[in-house]
Amino acid sequence: MRVACIAVLLVIFMASVSFAAKDPCLKCHEDKTPGVVEYWRASAHFSAGITCVRCHGADEKASHSRKAVVGAQACGTCHKGEFEEHRASKHSIGTKTGQGCTRNLPDSREKMRTCDHCHEKGTSTPIVNTECAMFLAQSPEMQRQGCSSCHSVEQRCDACHTRHGTDTVFAGLARTCGVCHMGPDHAQLEMWESSMHGALYSSGQVEGAPTCVTCHMAGTHNVSRGIALGRPAYQKDTERAAMVDICARCHTRKMAERSLADADAIEEQSRVFVDEARQIVEDLWREGLLEPSPSEREPHPLFGQSLVVGPHMLYEGLSSIEAKYFRIKMFHYMSAFKGAFHQNPDYSHWFGNAPLKLALSEIKSDAEALRKLSALQGRIDNISRAGFGNYGGEEGTVDKLKGDLRQLRERLLNKEITEKEYRSEKKRLLDSMGL
Amino acid sequence: MRVACIAVLLVIFMASVSFAAKDPCLKCHEDKTPGVVEYWRASAHFSAGITCVRCHGADEKASHSRKAVVGAQACGTCHKGEFEEHRASKHSIGTKTGQGCTRNLPDSREKMRTCDHCHEKGTSTPIVNTECAMFLAQSPEMQRQGCSSCHSVEQRCDACHTRHGTDTVFAGLARTCGVCHMGPDHAQLEMWESSMHGALYSSGQVEGAPTCVTCHMAGTHNVSRGIALGRPAYQKDTERAAMVDICARCHTRKMAERSLADADAIEEQSRVFVDEARQIVEDLWREGLLEPSPSEREPHPLFGQSLVVGPHMLYEGLSSIEAKYFRIKMFHYMSAFKGAFHQNPDYSHWFGNAPLKLALSEIKSDAEALRKLSALQGRIDNISRAGFGNYGGEEGTVDKLKGDLRQLRERLLNKEITEKEYRSEKKRLLDSMGL
Amino acid sequence: MRVACIAVLLVIFMASVSFAAKDPCLKCHEDKTPGVVEYWRASAHFSAGITCVRCHGADEKASHSRKAVVGAQACGTCHKGEFEEHRASKHSIGTKTGQGCTRNLPDSREKMRTCDHCHEKGTSTPIVNTECAMFLAQSPEMQRQGCSSCHSVEQRCDACHTRHGTDTVFAGLARTCGVCHMGPDHAQLEMWESSMHGALYSSGQVEGAPTCVTCHMAGTHNVSRGIALGRPAYQKDTERAAMVDICARCHTRKMAERSLADADAIEEQSRVFVDEARQIVEDLWREGLLEPSPSEREPHPLFGQSLVVGPHMLYEGLSSIEAKYFRIKMFHYMSAFKGAFHQNPDYSHWFGNAPLKLALSEIKSDAEALRKLSALQGRIDNISRAGFGNYGGEEGTVDKLKGDLRQLRERLLNKEITEKEYRSEKKRLLDSMGL
Repeated sequence: MRVACIAVLLVIFMASVSFAAKDPCLKCHEDKTPGVVEYWRASAHFSAGITCVRCHGADEKASHSRKAVVGAQACGTCHKGEFEEHRASKHSIGTKTGQGCTRNLPDSREKMRTCDHCHEKGTSTPIVNTECAMFLAQSPEMQRQGCSSCHSVEQRCDACHTRHGTDTVFAGLARTCGVCHMGPDHAQLEMWESSMHGALYSSGQVEGAPTCVTCHMAGTHNVSRGIALGRPAYQKDTERAAMVDICARCHTRKMAERSLADADAIEEQSRVFVDEARQIVEDLWREGLLEPSPSEREPHPLFGQSLVVGPHMLYEGLSSIEAKYFRIKMFHYMSAFKGAFHQNPDYSHWFGNAPLKLALSEIKSDAEALRKLSALQGRIDNISRAGFGNYGGEEGTVDKLKGDLRQLRERLLNKEITEKEYRSEKKRLLDSMGL
Repeated sequence: MRVACIAVLLVIFMASVSFAAKDPCLKCHEDKTPGVVEYWRASAHFSAGITCVRCHGADEKASHSRKAVVGAQACGTCHKGEFEEHRASKHSIGTKTGQGCTRNLPDSREKMRTCDHCHEKGTSTPIVNTECAMFLAQSPEMQRQGCSSCHSVEQRCDACHTRHGTDTVFAGLARTCGVCHMGPDHAQLEMWESSMHGALYSSGQVEGAPTCVTCHMAGTHNVSRGIALGRPAYQKDTERAAMVDICARCHTRKMAERSLADADAIEEQSRVFVDEARQIVEDLWREGLLEPSPSEREPHPLFGQSLVVGPHMLYEGLSSIEAKYFRIKMFHYMSAFKGAFHQNPDYSHWFGNAPLKLALSEIKSDAEALRKLSALQGRIDNISRAGFGNYGGEEGTVDKLKGDLRQLRERLLNKEITEKEYRSEKKRLLDSMGL
Repeated sequence: MRVACIAVLLVIFMASVSFAAKDPCLKCHEDKTPGVVEYWRASAHFSAGITCVRCHGADEKASHSRKAVVGAQACGTCHKGEFEEHRASKHSIGTKTGQGCTRNLPDSREKMRTCDHCHEKGTSTPIVNTECAMFLAQSPEMQRQGCSSCHSVEQRCDACHTRHGTDTVFAGLARTCGVCHMGPDHAQLEMWESSMHGALYSSGQVEGAPTCVTCHMAGTHNVSRGIALGRPAYQKDTERAAMVDICARCHTRKMAERSLADADAIEEQSRVFVDEARQIVEDLWREGLLEPSPSEREPHPLFGQSLVVGPHMLYEGLSSIEAKYFRIKMFHYMSAFKGAFHQNPDYSHWFGNAPLKLALSEIKSDAEALRKLSALQGRIDNISRAGFGNYGGEEGTVDKLKGDLRQLRERLLNKEITEKEYRSEKKRLLDSMGL
């Protein structure tokens, strides 16, 4: 029996050696990249006879010009289930799929809820077109090192799995998820690590202490399972129930449900503050008080010279108030509710709620200061215009006119008035000054 | 001998099994919460015959409606010494004891240094009344997930000890303390972890490398032992000596004393900067330059519409200058001196001293800008009032009057003037404008 | 053979015991600091007969008054190679060597590229003179705990190596480097720890997973090997090649070269933003719009009352705009490029690029607000001066004069005009007002 077993293993080994021996890449790469070859030889791929060309393709020229990178699709030819789960999850919306951008999620841009979002019209041919303002506004180097390093997970299994090896332990580590899921915009690694869950795990004393995969990849590569937030109404309950099932392995259902419901509420409450801040920014824009105004900036890569405060808001060329709003929605709001979902009181409160409310205070206070300054300017303009122009200076009158014209132009850009209305109102303004 | 031993163990085991068997909860809970039951069975509590009802009480209805949570007092019936030490420490001042709030420490609010602070007048019956402005200003969900998660340690032994088990290793981990002791307001976990002490510990190479409990719980559950800061003068030396004894296990006494004295000095120096910033905020308030002014805000939960910059300062509804002050005292000041006490140069300097001084710079600079804007407003008011009103606009005159009346009202709210003085001065102001 | 070996070891052991026995310190220190003695007895130093006086010197009085601290030079008498490598690296420029300060690197202050920078004129006697503005502006306690804790590495081998022991494992831990290399100014520890490199290492699964020393101390104590950035042109290629050699142990050369070239580009691009911000600060200064102006501040320890925005910029006594600029260059810029060099997308993008561009936005926006306020002031001054002085108030005219005189004085301090030009222009200004 034992002899038979060994014989079978030997046959498999011999077979794989002979498979491997046939691979044309090894001739050079055993010398040039011995580490890679060695790592592959220790893998289950080697034992199963999966050689270089099987994944990289047989086109030597393409391989050597970086055109034969092994994408998720290639892995998916064998690992079908995992690939489909992966593509059904939020991990599948990167910068390279469809009108690629996580900011182009259907609910954020209504017009994109169609087949045309991802496929060429009337076909099933996928579009690959990065339509992500924040990405497009960066240098190629920052795009590569700062954006695509993470936002290529839709097509890269080796974002989590080590390359050339098949060891799955590494892919399951919280630190592996954390390479992307960290930092001011979504500090999931830090939240988990300093929560009771992370403390239990890092103690090495508690078997089954929860890491990222425990809750977010329970038997699936669909990392969106169990996340109710942002789902259409008909999915919310199913997803929440799936998560509570996982919590219930250690906690009572009631406790888990209440904790997640609290996090839901914190998300809603925090969003109200974000919306309040956004309203102030939009009001100031209508009052012509954003400095620089959108019409004075580099055009936005997707929306030109209009005010953009939605998902495609940039972080460059903003007025001070908008910069504060950007931090509120991208950093503080995210920490407030994600901290609650990850059972981290400090992230929810001190990295989230407190700075969120502090920054909202500041936006309101600063808006009033801008209005006060503008009112003063208006009063001096009045004095100047009423015959004291030679003392207050023409400057004031000209400033007022410039401001009125700029505001008019922005209303046009934002399609609040027609081209015709614009021209007529512009004429009226110039006439009133005798110009 | 060995046989005898086994016999004794067997008797204990049988006894505990029979104890356990009698517990009415197990009937259902072995099915409903098997993990919990299993964890308890592996504990010293089980061996000693401590069953569910002993801690949770025999009132089934109460237990099932979350009214029979096992508080510290329950643990204290057996663990007397630990409970008394715990209650003698700063860990005993949460939101649920007396006029519960760490911000209500005696030295911060003089009037509370009496028995009535914690007991009903003339009795020993404890008061439970959360009088904590920052807590009261939050939503119930944020109170639960952001505040009480940590600020319930006075009544929860399971904040540190795992529930249902009796393993003490987990309670002693730095990461366990760190679930609450982290973040911008007091980053003790981060400070220790990235100090030489934490580096030694995490290397796993140095036996006895110091973690939180080494210095702060040396043979006691009184976590305040050895902390001289904030103590009345007669206690300072004893506490400092207790800490130096611990340092002296590895370092020379001289070195430890000098290092702690440096941290004392850094605390004092940093406090001077905080006070300087606070003075500027108070001056601006007296000059009527905080925008929004306290009288225009939601009333403070404890002090109504007066300016609050002390321990009960809120982080919502502030003017921009106050928001900066809040960060100075709650974040930068804390990092500067706590970093020094935890031997972390980067926290003391770059997370503490540098941002503290930067923000103080900004407060001063911004205060001058507010004053400049206000002076301009005053000068335009003068021009308007002096006969150019029709040009400068009535607006200016009305603004001035409104400001004067608002300032008057705030002096009343803050009890700087009497109701009578308020009415008389208000009349004078309105008369002067012919109103 | 084996017996002979044991005999030799025994002789060495006996010899070292007898060496040790002769040391005069042990008599007392075995009682007073038993931990230290025990640690030393377990070290290779003990086995080799290196006793207390060999490193601390035989001057008992000096030793007891902290004058005989064991500096790097003392270690260097035996460990010659390591000492020379250490002194050839950036680790050798602290606050105690030459015109000590990392901010005094040759390329930042041209005049210091001479022998006199580190040696008394015409001799080889080293100068020890801390000429570091940021250091000099701090209290002695902050200097000790916040600055010198790290910036003494040039003379302290025990900054990394444990004291009295000779175990080298601890010195090689990333956490040991991280005690200094962390925080907002250079978060190398955090960058590595949350990168794929750090994730591999902390998994404990990957032999040879890279830590700090893998790349920065490959067979040398010269930690600057392989760092091309900031080098003169003729060294750049050699250093880069040395680093790529290390990368190539695991990666293809092409991949490593492209990744490092991207980081180079990100550094350059980020520096352009820093320079843009700096230009705005300098422009505002020339327009007299920094509040407080340099002439109203505590004198700078090295450059008196002129504007300092270079390497010796302070973080105290600044205007709000300068405070923002300080954060840009010391925090955001550093994260942007160091994050890229350490393969951490989140640090490069979200801790670096995004806040850098946000703060640049704010500086531009705030500069315009300052200019607007100043223009208003000018217009009111015009009204006042032109015969409405009694209405606009003398205040305006006096403010204008004060501003002009202050600006004049700063041009003198900054040596833009001569003393004579200053006096003549000052007279003209005063005359024009009839003063």
